[in-house]
Amino acid sequence: MRQNSQKPFKERILQSSRSKQSRIVLAIDVHDGRPRELTDQAIGLFEQTRQSICSVKFGRQTILSIGPERTSELLSKIRGYGFTTIIDDKLNDIDETNAAITKAYVNIGFDAITVNPFTGWKGGLETTFKFAHEHGMGLLALVYMSHPGASEGYGQRVLLGAGSKKTRPEFEIFAEKAVEWKADGAVVGATRPNIVRRAKEILGTSVPIFSPGVGTQGGEIARSLKAGTDYFIIGRSITEAQNPGKIAEEFARVSISPHD
Amino acid sequence: MRQNSQKPFKERILQSSRSKQSRIVLAIDVHDGRPRELTDQAIGLFEQTRQSICSVKFGRQTILSIGPERTSELLSKIRGYGFTTIIDDKLNDIDETNAAITKAYVNIGFDAITVNPFTGWKGGLETTFKFAHEHGMGLLALVYMSHPGASEGYGQRVLLGAGSKKTRPEFEIFAEKAVEWKADGAVVGATRPNIVRRAKEILGTSVPIFSPGVGTQGGEIARSLKAGTDYFIIGRSITEAQNPGKIAEEFARVSISPHD
Repeated sequence: MRQNSQKPFKERILQSSRSKQSRIVLAIDVHDGRPRELTDQAIGLFEQTRQSICSVKFGRQTILSIGPERTSELLSKIRGYGFTTIIDDKLNDIDETNAAITKAYVNIGFDAITVNPFTGWKGGLETTFKFAHEHGMGLLALVYMSHPGASEGYGQRVLLGAGSKKTRPEFEIFAEKAVEWKADGAVVGATRPNIVRRAKEILGTSVPIFSPGVGTQGGEIARSLKAGTDYFIIGRSITEAQNPGKIAEEFARVSISPHD
Repeated sequence: MRQNSQKPFKERILQSSRSKQSRIVLAIDVHDGRPRELTDQAIGLFEQTRQSICSVKFGRQTILSIGPERTSELLSKIRGYGFTTIIDDKLNDIDETNAAITKAYVNIGFDAITVNPFTGWKGGLETTFKFAHEHGMGLLALVYMSHPGASEGYGQRVLLGAGSKKTRPEFEIFAEKAVEWKADGAVVGATRPNIVRRAKEILGTSVPIFSPGVGTQGGEIARSLKAGTDYFIIGRSITEAQNPGKIAEEFARVSISPHD
């Protein structure tokens, strides 16, 4: 297994973003078809867009459909071009399971993983943060997801301590954990610019914001960028377009110099 | 893809539990080694214990290590003996991703999946519940996990509504969602018998309780059973024993007639 001989994930993606002049993380989710076809589809999407993106994110459905070996080959190709790769696992298990899952992803060849801070630290994410950082793996903490129902959990107000009467939004607590746990990124949906703004106040410059939800889900790049987003996770708006390369290029341009 | 031509998951596992005289769900997590060896290890563990268990649960690390094809073969063997199989995914994504992941698990051959109610309903778990139930797939909702840090999220008190001053523990809200969403089970750690008891009051007889955390993590079967647990999820205490078959047999006996 690889050791932490390279720069932290946060620095690697920033470098990539600067050299490509793009804040776009391409989300590749392929799962309807035979493994070989899906792998070719994924490679095709990457090839068409790689001039305009700074990283690639995969969902679990893709690995479940094409298998770990083919995923490894795919990642190796992508990383060969100097890109980082993210597995969107939304990890939320007990420590031993989290560590085993993270280790499996490191072996497959991922550079970063998303985790859900709701899990808690002790016997939860503590060992995963330690293990991941020892192996040069980045950790992106969910702070507020992009779908409407996210308000049920991420948007709820939580009582601070047993004797207290003060409450605080869950996502603010998660943002503070992201800073405290030294996460390499925080995921905040582009669909809620006010939340991005508030999260940025807590995260400052130490934890960059990754925002999904642009395009298909309705979030707008310029508004979200102004609110504090550092990277945009874009899937369907690019991958389902007639010309993914052209659309990615447009997104990249807006992500660097917004029209405002 | 299979259609819902069979009984609901809840009834199938109950039937299995009665016929085997066991409330033990064997958790098989194999991930340190080559795919072929790990698959053989998993089959071996199942063969040694199958007289004393009522279902089998797998973690994601196993599928990531042996791949979807071998997992399919493995599940097919286990299901051939009439057992149900559970994937412990702790699903917590947006609707389209949740549906794609669940579909992938149905295709691999799983009978049930764990989900995290924190995700929320609209644009979150709604379509997954619909899709899973249409395909005869059971859904087990996390209500309170077994590790110490679970208190941070599952144990926090949440404000009820914007104008309200009333608060309620998160796990009670999750238990109510499990009932309302028609989950096939609720996961409550055996490490907290008082929580099991309180969850049971909300879940009643409509949603059975699955408790991990017995043995290695410190929970006790008899106490947890009395508090309301219906099924015990046991992994390491059986799989790391010198004689897994014998230990599983003992657990099964205690799970049906506790010493109290």
